[in-house]
Amino acid sequence: MTRVLVLHGPNLNLLGQREPDVYGPTDLATIDQRLADQAKAAGAHLETFQSNAEHALVERVQEASRQGVEAIIINPAAFTHTSVALRDALTGVAIPFIEVHLSNIQAREPFRQHSYFSDAARGVIAGLGPIGYELALQAILQAAERN
Amino acid sequence: MTRVLVLHGPNLNLLGQREPDVYGPTDLATIDQRLADQAKAAGAHLETFQSNAEHALVERVQEASRQGVEAIIINPAAFTHTSVALRDALTGVAIPFIEVHLSNIQAREPFRQHSYFSDAARGVIAGLGPIGYELALQAILQAAERN
Amino acid sequence: MTRVLVLHGPNLNLLGQREPDVYGPTDLATIDQRLADQAKAAGAHLETFQSNAEHALVERVQEASRQGVEAIIINPAAFTHTSVALRDALTGVAIPFIEVHLSNIQAREPFRQHSYFSDAARGVIAGLGPIGYELALQAILQAAERN
Amino acid sequence: MTRVLVLHGPNLNLLGQREPDVYGPTDLATIDQRLADQAKAAGAHLETFQSNAEHALVERVQEASRQGVEAIIINPAAFTHTSVALRDALTGVAIPFIEVHLSNIQAREPFRQHSYFSDAARGVIAGLGPIGYELALQAILQAAERN
Amino acid sequence: MTRVLVLHGPNLNLLGQREPDVYGPTDLATIDQRLADQAKAAGAHLETFQSNAEHALVERVQEASRQGVEAIIINPAAFTHTSVALRDALTGVAIPFIEVHLSNIQAREPFRQHSYFSDAARGVIAGLGPIGYELALQAILQAAERN
Amino acid sequence: MTRVLVLHGPNLNLLGQREPDVYGPTDLATIDQRLADQAKAAGAHLETFQSNAEHALVERVQEASRQGVEAIIINPAAFTHTSVALRDALTGVAIPFIEVHLSNIQAREPFRQHSYFSDAARGVIAGLGPIGYELALQAILQAAERN
Amino acid sequence: MTRVLVLHGPNLNLLGQREPDVYGPTDLATIDQRLADQAKAAGAHLETFQSNAEHALVERVQEASRQGVEAIIINPAAFTHTSVALRDALTGVAIPFIEVHLSNIQAREPFRQHSYFSDAARGVIAGLGPIGYELALQAILQAAERN
Amino acid sequence: MTRVLVLHGPNLNLLGQREPDVYGPTDLATIDQRLADQAKAAGAHLETFQSNAEHALVERVQEASRQGVEAIIINPAAFTHTSVALRDALTGVAIPFIEVHLSNIQAREPFRQHSYFSDAARGVIAGLGPIGYELALQAILQAAERN
Amino acid sequence: MTRVLVLHGPNLNLLGQREPDVYGPTDLATIDQRLADQAKAAGAHLETFQSNAEHALVERVQEASRQGVEAIIINPAAFTHTSVALRDALTGVAIPFIEVHLSNIQAREPFRQHSYFSDAARGVIAGLGPIGYELALQAILQAAERN
Amino acid sequence: MTRVLVLHGPNLNLLGQREPDVYGPTDLATIDQRLADQAKAAGAHLETFQSNAEHALVERVQEASRQGVEAIIINPAAFTHTSVALRDALTGVAIPFIEVHLSNIQAREPFRQHSYFSDAARGVIAGLGPIGYELALQAILQAAERN
Amino acid sequence: MTRVLVLHGPNLNLLGQREPDVYGPTDLATIDQRLADQAKAAGAHLETFQSNAEHALVERVQEASRQGVEAIIINPAAFTHTSVALRDALTGVAIPFIEVHLSNIQAREPFRQHSYFSDAARGVIAGLGPIGYELALQAILQAAERN
Amino acid sequence: MTRVLVLHGPNLNLLGQREPDVYGPTDLATIDQRLADQAKAAGAHLETFQSNAEHALVERVQEASRQGVEAIIINPAAFTHTSVALRDALTGVAIPFIEVHLSNIQAREPFRQHSYFSDAARGVIAGLGPIGYELALQAILQAAERN
Repeated sequence: MTRVLVLHGPNLNLLGQREPDVYGPTDLATIDQRLADQAKAAGAHLETFQSNAEHALVERVQEASRQGVEAIIINPAAFTHTSVALRDALTGVAIPFIEVHLSNIQAREPFRQHSYFSDAARGVIAGLGPIGYELALQAILQAAERN
Repeated sequence: MTRVLVLHGPNLNLLGQREPDVYGPTDLATIDQRLADQAKAAGAHLETFQSNAEHALVERVQEASRQGVEAIIINPAAFTHTSVALRDALTGVAIPFIEVHLSNIQAREPFRQHSYFSDAARGVIAGLGPIGYELALQAILQAAERN
Repeated sequence: MTRVLVLHGPNLNLLGQREPDVYGPTDLATIDQRLADQAKAAGAHLETFQSNAEHALVERVQEASRQGVEAIIINPAAFTHTSVALRDALTGVAIPFIEVHLSNIQAREPFRQHSYFSDAARGVIAGLGPIGYELALQAILQAAERN
Repeated sequence: MTRVLVLHGPNLNLLGQREPDVYGPTDLATIDQRLADQAKAAGAHLETFQSNAEHALVERVQEASRQGVEAIIINPAAFTHTSVALRDALTGVAIPFIEVHLSNIQAREPFRQHSYFSDAARGVIAGLGPIGYELALQAILQAAERN
Repeated sequence: MTRVLVLHGPNLNLLGQREPDVYGPTDLATIDQRLADQAKAAGAHLETFQSNAEHALVERVQEASRQGVEAIIINPAAFTHTSVALRDALTGVAIPFIEVHLSNIQAREPFRQHSYFSDAARGVIAGLGPIGYELALQAILQAAERN
Repeated sequence: MTRVLVLHGPNLNLLGQREPDVYGPTDLATIDQRLADQAKAAGAHLETFQSNAEHALVERVQEASRQGVEAIIINPAAFTHTSVALRDALTGVAIPFIEVHLSNIQAREPFRQHSYFSDAARGVIAGLGPIGYELALQAILQAAERN
Repeated sequence: MTRVLVLHGPNLNLLGQREPDVYGPTDLATIDQRLADQAKAAGAHLETFQSNAEHALVERVQEASRQGVEAIIINPAAFTHTSVALRDALTGVAIPFIEVHLSNIQAREPFRQHSYFSDAARGVIAGLGPIGYELALQAILQAAERN
Repeated sequence: MTRVLVLHGPNLNLLGQREPDVYGPTDLATIDQRLADQAKAAGAHLETFQSNAEHALVERVQEASRQGVEAIIINPAAFTHTSVALRDALTGVAIPFIEVHLSNIQAREPFRQHSYFSDAARGVIAGLGPIGYELALQAILQAAERN
Repeated sequence: MTRVLVLHGPNLNLLGQREPDVYGPTDLATIDQRLADQAKAAGAHLETFQSNAEHALVERVQEASRQGVEAIIINPAAFTHTSVALRDALTGVAIPFIEVHLSNIQAREPFRQHSYFSDAARGVIAGLGPIGYELALQAILQAAERN
Repeated sequence: MTRVLVLHGPNLNLLGQREPDVYGPTDLATIDQRLADQAKAAGAHLETFQSNAEHALVERVQEASRQGVEAIIINPAAFTHTSVALRDALTGVAIPFIEVHLSNIQAREPFRQHSYFSDAARGVIAGLGPIGYELALQAILQAAERN
Repeated sequence: MTRVLVLHGPNLNLLGQREPDVYGPTDLATIDQRLADQAKAAGAHLETFQSNAEHALVERVQEASRQGVEAIIINPAAFTHTSVALRDALTGVAIPFIEVHLSNIQAREPFRQHSYFSDAARGVIAGLGPIGYELALQAILQAAERN
Repeated sequence: MTRVLVLHGPNLNLLGQREPDVYGPTDLATIDQRLADQAKAAGAHLETFQSNAEHALVERVQEASRQGVEAIIINPAAFTHTSVALRDALTGVAIPFIEVHLSNIQAREPFRQHSYFSDAARGVIAGLGPIGYELALQAILQAAERN
């Protein structure tokens, strides 16, 4: 049974309220529910975790390693551009991860065009809104299935 | 019936032979067949086109506009980093497109880290191998379905 | 009744002790008291909050939105140069804010010359010491009054 | 009796007419009158001077030194980004000055993000519209009062 | 009899349809007809050529040399920013050329602000829409007349 | 009756004497006379003004606004690369303007390759010598005629 | 009796498990024990503290000031490259500190080559593995002894 | 029998006519003939191919792979600085290649100082005129001989 | 009889008062007198001119051309770093000039390290205080003498 | 018996005299003596060598290889920032080396912040004065002991 | 009789021992012997010189001028990237030279990608190992022969 | 009696022969003789020293300190742009020095526009040919005289 962790970075708890023209009208609970359903249907174990605190995300990644999580889906949000600690946690535990962004970060402020995660990620999905998480999960499940 | 065009840039006709450690063992015909099956199953119309010539891709995009194509999936390959003409064709016809890369371009040579397409794309999927195309198609079909 | 929140970033709890030649001899309690008096005299509601933790500031901003705070005065201190998360919280809740710096950051180390906040702020006041907060508050009160 | 000089750089004589969405509807005479009233109320001496000519501003600064002006408020406008001569005049006479900008220069064209004045200024107030001048004057008067 | 060649780069065949707010409502046939009329009136020989293919433009330039073309008007469109080959063809045949752009490329994306042609051109006309071509032709005819 | 102002920046009063291999043998009076004739023939009102002083040009632009000038042709000469004040005057009065350069500034020193005017101009004509002014005037007259 | 504080930044709690080819096989407890023994032998007081949270480290530094700590050894780990707050805490309390890195950060990713700490540190020791901490402690003890 | 392919990029068909002070007086047929003679004398098989079209060169490289070509000599001309597609073709087929330039590209325009080929080439020969090709061929033949 | 013009840029009229630790205690009249004496002794004609206005200096240079001035000594002061117009005046009249700086501009703010004049000057003398002017005059006189 | 070579770069023979506020009061003989004592006590063989000549240091490194030196401690001094030859000698002989700097080079001129040695070194110790050498030696001896 | 000088820069005396995977197994004596044989066969005079000292190479170049050397082959090794003095010697004596590198410097560290010699060289040969010298010599002999 | 040392960097022994259009026709012996005469006439002690070796110049500077030299005139030639060691020697001995260049280095290759010496020099004289040395000496003598 594949074990997957979904991580949401800072301010994603505001989804649905925050700048809906940039981030869309869907809230985080809805996204998490859809992923849970999708995982369940595929017979996989999925947990989700949102935090505004870098250390909480770092420690959740470390815990994932102890739990035997096999794949991580992470939307680092603002930490994409600033957190080496979170990157180090991910490469430290060596769990493959897919980086997801709701908005098209290449079409926004220049400082959003650099990610501390992408070159260490298995893949990146950006700009497709909430469906991006679902595609990432599907990629993980499909890869697991083919093994 | 959704009409989708899949474009493959230069040297993608070598897939399966070319640097398999970077690009994987699947050849282009297999990728195209999977996409055709996926589209058919969803009742959509899908065409694929590969070319090593920038102008052929530019003109295929222009033709897509006349054909009423509603969405484009494009892996611009080497043209990602060099072709303003292909970008201009895509923004000129104003058909929404998703940019796909087989490999994780952020983990390769620095010159592969800039794309002339991303900021104009609806979304980007990179590093997930051939499955990236399938996810892009699914994103298009799902969006069409929800409308 | 205008509702104002004053946020102080990391190490500002050391004010009065820390590098007094750079930051001056006044401590934070004194600054907060003066602002409270000034707000009271103007019939406004004012709260202040200092934290060394980015997530605590992010969450205080999110809470401000729920409380109906109409204006924020923020001295992001070190986070000025590093926190996209705090910027995102501020733009996410869309409460107008004024950025205040005690010292003249343009006259210090080069890395202090870029702010993640200024371009999203309503205004910036820098280099005038503790009085900078009072001027910011006055700007808010005066704007409220004229509406 | 505190002696203050207020300097307005090029095109500020157009205030009220010029790009009112950027610079607001208040004209320069109104701003100057408010400052005069504020100074009078505080028992201070205040003069204002606008010029489109760099040398006229340079020479007004030199004259200020001979007149015993104790503080300068300057909105260098376009000269913010281009005039080393005006900066040199200010540091040459060694009169403390506060730099004021009506608009938020950090939110405009990149070339407006560098100032030849800020690192030599006592402080900077930007983006708060005409009230910025009043706050600067208040900062000066308050500092004088405390001495 | 002055012999002039007018070259149009990629996607200019879309003129009138493509992003009309950027490129205007006039189509290429209309532009070419106006130029033909203007040349005829002046007793000059004029040919026009559009291609989406870099090599076709390169080879048309080489052919121009064999035909004794005395002046070239070129709107390299997307190739402005990417084609050293076309530049080399122009400097290789040493026919003086004027570079024309319909839109004001300095007011668009940063990557459109560098041209591989301008420093080798006799002159540049940009931002004036279709009339830019006519002005370029007039400049050539007038220069020819004065000789 | 179209009202046009032609502005010549610093050192253009030396035309004909100054570096004739760069700027050509025609003097400014001749250029102005040709423009006057061209305007007269088209039933337009045209004034010309040269100054070596930035403030004189700024104030001439401000005056143009009061006079109802509809279009400006400006060769900012050295101010192209240094004068934000003149740019601000032009955007402040919001009169459309065409930027003209006698020489091909892209083929000269690197510091001549940046213009503070181009991105705000309606168009740019460079490198065509004195005829550049005539083409600019024609573009204005033709646009007026078509309205 | 010399009082020394040793600070370990984020993910250092993973030592021994995390990328052992980069960080070596020794775990943090072992490192701390060796330092404790070394301090004890020299009659010094030593405390160690690891945290994944920036604010916890900032506050531990502030506390050190109240405790009369005379020297700090810090391996900021990922915060080396991102934390101005921690730097400000250290310079704010003005306790001399030595920066230690287990790996040779100059031989890794470019973003690891800038430290927000080095220019404010008394010294830097990098690339020597766990022994780096011991050398730092020795430097402190020896300096204390010579005073 | 060693099989060698010689590729000439855009505008090299103009050799002998084009800027002879830069590229010399020898035409391409002469160069090709000398190489043919040299190959024949060494008992090697040599083909040459010139094109102004990037895709034609890309496809010639792909064909070389199918033909069992063991070494490529390529003068990418203008494509040196712009063609990732041609580079990708060469690394894709993994045939060792030597990059040749007739002129000394380091002594020309700055944009000619970057090559997309050099870091992937077995070697580079530049500035020695037509003899550069002959030296490249000799290097290949000699290496073959020693094996 | 050699005819020499000495030009002093903005704020040099403050010499002796302005930042004496940077610019020294000698005033401008004294410097000018010493130069007059030195010129007289050598049988040369020398005029000096100071202005805070760029256009006044530009026009003084233009006048020098009409007067037959053979050499110019110029301390452009702040205009060193900002005035293309003054540079253009000097190269426009083609009178050889020596650039003089009282202070060592290489040891000051970074923006003082670029001069718009040096590459067009016959020579540069910096950092030697008022004597720098005398050395420049001597260089001119000696060169004149040797001709 | 461990064999260690200590290399001192240019001007280190001035130690004790040269800028004592930067480099401290200890002279080189004292440093060398302390290292000799430390080596002797540990039963190791140690030689020291200072030179102002790059080639002498290069050749001393080459000689070390022939002598079987197992570890090098090098303070390249000014050569840190300029000598690729010395770096190449060290990597050429493949003897592990530790780079030592007396002063904190990160707190000095920008050009001192790049080292040609660090990324090839086993480790770096900077800013700790003469004790830095002793720590480096101890690191080597301890590593040897543990093997 | 053609007179040729071959210069080898620092550490090339280690050839055969130093990093053989980068520089190959051939030693310098072998290379020199092959060149001597090749020169003799062609009736040319050839001398070779290796030094680790910049000044020795500079002076050997100066001596070459006095000896009437007609061509120089130089592998500046580490000095490629650091020695303006050696470049100045070569351009000072004005003897044409070919720059040779054993390894492909474009495929190594970034600092090896800039050469102080290439733009002044007649040509460059890189990456072909010891045969590069032989090709350079052949280029010289062939050129001599054709004259 | 003032004691002055004149240092000439690499290749200056070629003066008179080397690129006379850049460096002039005067040889070094003549320059030195003129300086000797000038010193003698002023009752000063002057020595000159030329070397192509960096270490020889470094050591000559160190020796100057022991000899009580009061001022140095140095033309570092190529070392201007590459020698931190020579800079360190000069600042190490703390003898004031004037930097002299025969040619106008600002008008030459970009790499000649940075000097490692200027910001530490008392002054700089460039572009005036051999007379530059004489002016430097005069500046020293005059300063000595006024003390």
